Amino acid sequence: MTNQGLALDRLFHALADPSRRVIIQRLVQGPASVSELARPLAMALPSVLQHLQVLENGGLIRSHKVGRVRTCRIVPKALATAETWIAERRTLWEGRLDRMEEYVKVLQAKEKTDGDPA
Amino acid sequence: MTNQGLALDRLFHALADPSRRVIIQRLVQGPASVSELARPLAMALPSVLQHLQVLENGGLIRSHKVGRVRTCRIVPKALATAETWIAERRTLWEGRLDRMEEYVKVLQAKEKTDGDPA
Repeated sequence: MTNQGLALDRLFHALADPSRRVIIQRLVQGPASVSELARPLAMALPSVLQHLQVLENGGLIRSHKVGRVRTCRIVPKALATAETWIAERRTLWEGRLDRMEEYVKVLQAKEKTDGDPA
Repeated sequence: MTNQGLALDRLFHALADPSRRVIIQRLVQGPASVSELARPLAMALPSVLQHLQVLENGGLIRSHKVGRVRTCRIVPKALATAETWIAERRTLWEGRLDRMEEYVKVLQAKEKTDGDPA
């Protein structure tokens, strides 16, 4: 697999969990400490740390520790990568729809011409 | 978890695999049979069927069987749901950046005024 493929695997996997999406939702509003991120989640701290690790592996967040406080931040580039991958597929799909629509118009015009009295 | 949360879990999980993304990539260009979808994937048919099941659970594709041929189609709404979720978080993040930028400008203007000789 390419590096980009592996990155997308980890990225989409990281987004595929409600607690991890709650963490993302909080971090797009600004950096936060681990204990702040843990507050709305009904789980023990080790579980929170595991989720943060998955998000960090997915490239979605980074963290650094000062003294006893670990602060996490969003990495907006990763969200953009996921969004771009999806948007590109949507564009392909919409392009196909547009071409089908044009083709139907051509057929309709042809039918009209064929149906007109000579 | 809400229904929407569960849907996003399955949706992002479905996207977190390279073979499943190859299938999506093919289907945005139009419907395809299972054997056509299996061709570029280096795996046995049961594995392909499992991947298709995950994509169908994620709401990304649907399929129907006529005689012995099962044909798969993309469900564009699911891709749009994933894209919207990400885009909303990006907008929050960008809004925060804009507010920070404005605040820095206010501080800079204040510094300039304070520094001006009376």
